Parts: sequence; structure tokens; C-alpha cells
Amino acid sequence: MTVADLEPGIVPAVLPALSDSAQPGLAGIPLAAWTRAVRPSVIQRMLSFSGRDDLVTFALGLPATDLFPVDGLAAAAERVLRGDPDALQYKPGFRGLKEQVVRIMEARGVHCRPEQVFLTTAAQQGLSLLNRLLLEPGGTLLCDSLVYMGFQQVVESYQPTVLTVGTDLETGMDVDAVEAHLAGGARPAYIYCITDGHNPLGCSLSPEKRVQLVNIARRYEIPIIEDDAYGMLNFERAVPPMRSLDDRWVLYVGSFSKVLAPSFRLGWVVAPEEMIPVLGCAKDGADLDMASFSQRVAASYLATGDLPRHLANVRAEYRVRRDLMLELLKEELPAGSRWSVPRNGALIWAELPGGMDTGELLDTCMEAGVAYVPGAAFAMPGTDPGTGRSGMRLNFSYCNPDQIREGMSRLGRVLRAHA
Amino acid sequence: MTVADLEPGIVPAVLPALSDSAQPGLAGIPLAAWTRAVRPSVIQRMLSFSGRDDLVTFALGLPATDLFPVDGLAAAAERVLRGDPDALQYKPGFRGLKEQVVRIMEARGVHCRPEQVFLTTAAQQGLSLLNRLLLEPGGTLLCDSLVYMGFQQVVESYQPTVLTVGTDLETGMDVDAVEAHLAGGARPAYIYCITDGHNPLGCSLSPEKRVQLVNIARRYEIPIIEDDAYGMLNFERAVPPMRSLDDRWVLYVGSFSKVLAPSFRLGWVVAPEEMIPVLGCAKDGADLDMASFSQRVAASYLATGDLPRHLANVRAEYRVRRDLMLELLKEELPAGSRWSVPRNGALIWAELPGGMDTGELLDTCMEAGVAYVPGAAFAMPGTDPGTGRSGMRLNFSYCNPDQIREGMSRLGRVLRAHA
Repeated sequence: MTVADLEPGIVPAVLPALSDSAQPGLAGIPLAAWTRAVRPSVIQRMLSFSGRDDLVTFALGLPATDLFPVDGLAAAAERVLRGDPDALQYKPGFRGLKEQVVRIMEARGVHCRPEQVFLTTAAQQGLSLLNRLLLEPGGTLLCDSLVYMGFQQVVESYQPTVLTVGTDLETGMDVDAVEAHLAGGARPAYIYCITDGHNPLGCSLSPEKRVQLVNIARRYEIPIIEDDAYGMLNFERAVPPMRSLDDRWVLYVGSFSKVLAPSFRLGWVVAPEEMIPVLGCAKDGADLDMASFSQRVAASYLATGDLPRHLANVRAEYRVRRDLMLELLKEELPAGSRWSVPRNGALIWAELPGGMDTGELLDTCMEAGVAYVPGAAFAMPGTDPGTGRSGMRLNFSYCNPDQIREGMSRLGRVLRAHA
Repeated sequence: MTVADLEPGIVPAVLPALSDSAQPGLAGIPLAAWTRAVRPSVIQRMLSFSGRDDLVTFALGLPATDLFPVDGLAAAAERVLRGDPDALQYKPGFRGLKEQVVRIMEARGVHCRPEQVFLTTAAQQGLSLLNRLLLEPGGTLLCDSLVYMGFQQVVESYQPTVLTVGTDLETGMDVDAVEAHLAGGARPAYIYCITDGHNPLGCSLSPEKRVQLVNIARRYEIPIIEDDAYGMLNFERAVPPMRSLDDRWVLYVGSFSKVLAPSFRLGWVVAPEEMIPVLGCAKDGADLDMASFSQRVAASYLATGDLPRHLANVRAEYRVRRDLMLELLKEELPAGSRWSVPRNGALIWAELPGGMDTGELLDTCMEAGVAYVPGAAFAMPGTDPGTGRSGMRLNFSYCNPDQIREGMSRLGRVLRAHA
């Protein structure tokens, strides 16, 4: 190889071509140990199917595409691009959006100040940064046995010790079991809890358990990471998140993905003010703590006051879809099945009877034109091998009622044939 | 605390208020060990000053606000929001933008395929994810002694062993010193190299050294992370990046921040195709590998073919500003000073004579109304204590010519008084 090879547009010809497609494995480049434990993401696999026209997919936690406030957001984008010269520049996290977050938190029953709000590249980055701050490599954490896959992906590179507890389909996390771990001497870096519209279980933590868990966190001085991605999608009277009870031990993670638009990649953390600069350092390393264009568009939209109308619209439509799916579950699922009745969110967890394995049934269901996420995908590594095997996560927000009817009919046909 | 405390909008009153502002330190929450080594980000500190009207700031690597292609981007945002129902939804990395990246790489003299392109939340995330893949906690890496602060922030949480080499202000990284490390038995996880428009040194790696470094990477089987954030801002004939010479050992990091808009937070990695799914897993954990609204707006703008015109405009204006600053350096800096003459980018590195310390002089300069980044801020932890102390990083892209004249005059007055 010589300098002449650096002519623009000229492929170097004097050395043998090292096309990576000819290389087995990872092109021979040694990778960090955690990558060997990586499981292919079910989310990504399901997304790749989402373009198949004949498939009814209950698999992904997608919002309904037709309910996005497109007009409001397009007007906001126009306002911001034409009127705000800083909208395209590097800027620190946008104060105007932090102030809107404070209002949203107020509506959730939480008092906080803009100085306690840290803006993130969606809730996923909130979880990621809080783990950077709290969890050492090889450290210990505590969570449900069945839990949001994105959380598993956050923690897997730490190769942590995971303490798990069961989850009741009506009242949420087994808080007595949390206390038993701690009373037994365990000191996890944090307790991870999805308060409302649990992913994948669809349940919400009962008010009694919220109080109990916060008291445990205070007594043992263990922070709670409260994941509230679905809190604002409530179908019954809203219960405030745990952050309303404690502004020190509860680190709150919020998201605009379900209430505004996932593709804006906007979320936030509410944390003690002293923690905000450390979050800033972690975010600098991850993707630079700079306001995005999206932050200003979202803030401009929210400033119009349209969100309550939009949310009422989304809640009403999702409630119709939830009620329809719950009704059809009774008709279509084999006798002995059970499922959660979500007060919040977009997800129902259904469990099949008699040792049926939803992982084994998935291919047949996909052939019949319906998709779900098999429950075992949500089992934290280290839990019993059968964890989640009889369960499936069903999303009711993305499909319209006709699709829900068709998909549930296909699902019922396959499941009853295998019951 | 009782369940009644969970009424929305009611602050719990039965327990003592644990206002975090009353708590010393980090609210008593134990944080991971790496956070104790964190240095406050100079970038963030400088950003907080950027609103001071009377200050001329050469400190930040900001693009010129008045050169953003606002009309083209506003039209693209409108097209995407009105015409693309998927623009607000969760979607995998947008193929249309990957195809535009392939064209841009072609113009840089690099042949690649969309399957080798991985879209990131700006170049900073590209660096962050490649470190996740390549670097173990406590592992070893090799880079310049003086290097982009954002790179330091990426690696600090790994608490790595850092091998450093010097950098020539004309020809870039000391590649012989790289080879000496490897010949001596060192096996770093990777070699980090900013090929063009080095941050903070302003130099570009000579064509001879590009070839030499790639040959070293091949011989010792050590990957190069090639940071090309400034490659497209060339003021002389462009030299292709190292990725044009090798598609296996060179992992390329690109950015739209300097050529389109930083606030879109868009960048990319070009890597062997087998590595892309692993990058996807790492990104899932960081912020979910989902196309953002920004990806589609950028792709729609790029599809209009306006980029070459826009880039020509930016290059011409930056060249004027560079030439003006270089001219004024001769007039204003104390005798015995030296500086780089950048072929690319937005940054000049100037070194003062006779033991002058740019860190000590900063406050006086700020009082006189001009800011820069003191060179020591770029010294990798573990380098000699004096590293970078006589240097300063000066940005010439953000200020207009009048501001450059005023700022250089203020700078010269202070520096000559202290020489």
C-alpha cells in the first residue's frame, strides 16, 4: 500500500482486498467479554417483521401511528426552525422543556423543580445513565423476575448479580420479597420498579405497595429507579408515582415516547439536584449533553397547551382497544388461561394453562399471521429456566379494532388447537 | 406516610420532608467509583458562558449559526412530518440515511455499503459504542497525549490504562511512537486517531502516516478508531481517511454535526458488517436503536442534493475566518509563539513561549472579554503534569470576522502583557 492509494475514489489495489464479508466471525477483532453473552434483541427482530402486511402484530409496544399530533408537531417544527436561531446549534439541555416537564410532573402529583430535571435521549438513556451512576461492574441489583427487555440490555454489560422477586398480576412487585432480600443482608445498588402499566405484565403497583416500597428504600437507604414510561396512559383514576412520596431515594425516569412520539427520543430523569451534574458527565460520555432540535420542537408544542386534549384522545382510544382485547381474550384463549387487566399503558400479559410454551407456539402463530412476544424473553438472566414460559405479552395500542379482532381470532385458533 | 399521601397534587405531610436541597453531598446515595474521578466538563462550563453578549468566545467548537441550511431543513421537516407516517414511530435505523452516508463516504474516497453503516446519536455515541465493544473495564488503549475532551469522557468510566504518543502540529500523530509501544509488547484494545482537523491540535495526519498507521494496525491486528468529525470541512484538496485503505481494521466514526447541524445529534460508524448487530445491542442498551425524526429529516434534506452547495459555502466562509485568525496570530501573539495551520476543521492550536500557562491566564482573558480552552484540559489523565499547559485551543468557525478581530485584539493585549 502506498500514498497513491489515497487518491479519492480509488480503491487500494496494491494490497490484497480485505473485504470484511470474506472474514468469518467478527472480522477477527477481539470484543469485550460482555458481548459474548449478548442475546439477539427480540425487539429488533419484531421490528423487522412490522412491515409484513399480512401480519397482525401484538408484539411491539408501539403507540398508534394515526394518533400522533402531527399537525401540532409540524407547526412547532416550523416555528422552531424559522424563529429560533439556536435550534440547530450545540446548546445545553433546553430549560424550556425542563419547565414543561415540571408541569407534567405536577399533573402526575409530583412537585419538582427544573433544576431536578435532567433531559435524556428517551427513557432508555435515563435507565442507562442511572445505571452508570449507581452500578459497579459485577455489582448487585434488585428487580422483578420478568422485566422490560430494554432494562436487561442496559444491565447486561455490567454482568451484575441480579436479585429477583415475583410480581402479582393485580398489585405488582412482591414488596415483601424485596424486604426479605434486604432483611437477609443483601445491599443492591438499587431497586428497579415499573410503577404503572408494567412492561411486560401490564399491572400497576398498588397504592399500599408504593408506600411500603418507599419506606423500605428509606429504611435500608437503597435508591429506587422508578420507571414511569406508561404512567400518563391511565385508564382509571391516576395514582401518583413513588416520586411523589420521596424526593431523595426515588430516582424517576419519564418518557415522551408514549405520549408524544417515540422518534423524538426524548425522556427525562427527576433526581436530587446534586446528582444532575454527574448525570451530565455520564451523558457527555454517551452522546454529549446538548439540546437537540427535538427538545425545542417538543417544548414549543407543549407550550401551546395541546397535550391534555391529545392525551385524552389517546387514553380514550387505547381504552377502547384494551376493552376489546380483554373481551376477546375471554372468547379466544383456552380454558384455564389468565391475564392482567391493565389500569395503564399498552400491554396485557396472558398466561396459558397446562404447560403450554409460548416460545414453541410462536412460529405457528406467525404462520397464522399473528405475533406476540413470548414471555421467556422477559425473564432476567439467572431466574428459573421456566420463568415466563407460559406467558405472552400482547400490545393493544398499535393495532386498530379490526386488526385486534382479526389477530385475536388467529391467535385463538392456534392456541386452542394446541391446548 | 400513608396511602392518602398518594392523592395527586398533595405533598406527603406525615413524614418529615426530605427535600434534597437540604441534603449535603449526593443526597447520601452511593455512586459508582468512576464518578469520584470525574472532572467538571470544560465544554459545559464554556457553553454556560456562550450567552454572555460581551464575550468573544473562541472556546467552543461550534459551527457558525448563520450558515445552517435552515430553509432546506425546514422544508425537509415539513415534507417528513406531512408525508411520512413512520416519521414519528419507533423504527430501525433509517435505510434512506444509510444510503446517503454511503454517498458521502464515496465523496471522501471510501467505498462502503449501507450494511456496513451504523447510525448513531452523533459521533460521540459512535465513540461511546465502539468503546463498549472493544474496551474492557481497566483495559488498555492508545491515543495522542492531547486529545478531544469528549473522548476522555467516553473512556474515564473504564478507568483504563492509557498509552500516549506525541503529535506533530504539521503531520499529526507520532506513528513511530505507536509502533514502538506495540513492538515493546503493548496490546491496546484499539488506537484512537483523529485523522483530519485534529481536536484540539488542528493538524491532519499526513498521507504517509495514514498508510504507515494502517499497516501497523494490520501487522499487529489492533483496530483503529478513526474519528473523522472534521474530514468534510477541508480547505485544501481532501485526503481520504484511513478507512479508504482498510475495511477491516479501521472503524470509522463520522458526524453530521459540523456539516449539517449539531442539534440533530446524527452520526455514523462504518464497521465490518458482522459488527453491526453487536453495535445494535450496545445501542439498544444506551438509547434504543430506533430511527429518530432527525434521521428522516436529514435524509430528506440530503436527497435534494443541496449538500455540496452548502458545504462549499461553509468551507469558503471558514477558510476566510481561518486565514484571518492565522494573520492576526502573527500580529497579536507574543514573540516565540507557534501554532498549527489547519487544512481541515475549525480549530487552531497555539502555544505560548517561555513557560506561560494558559490555564492561569484564562480568568484575565475572560475579564478582558475573550475565551479559549486552556491546553491542559486536553491532556489525557496520566500524561506528564505540564502537558498542554502552554497551549490554547482557538475556534475560528463560530465568530464572524469582526468578532475574530475584536477577540484576537483582546487576547493579544493580555498575552503580550504577561509574556
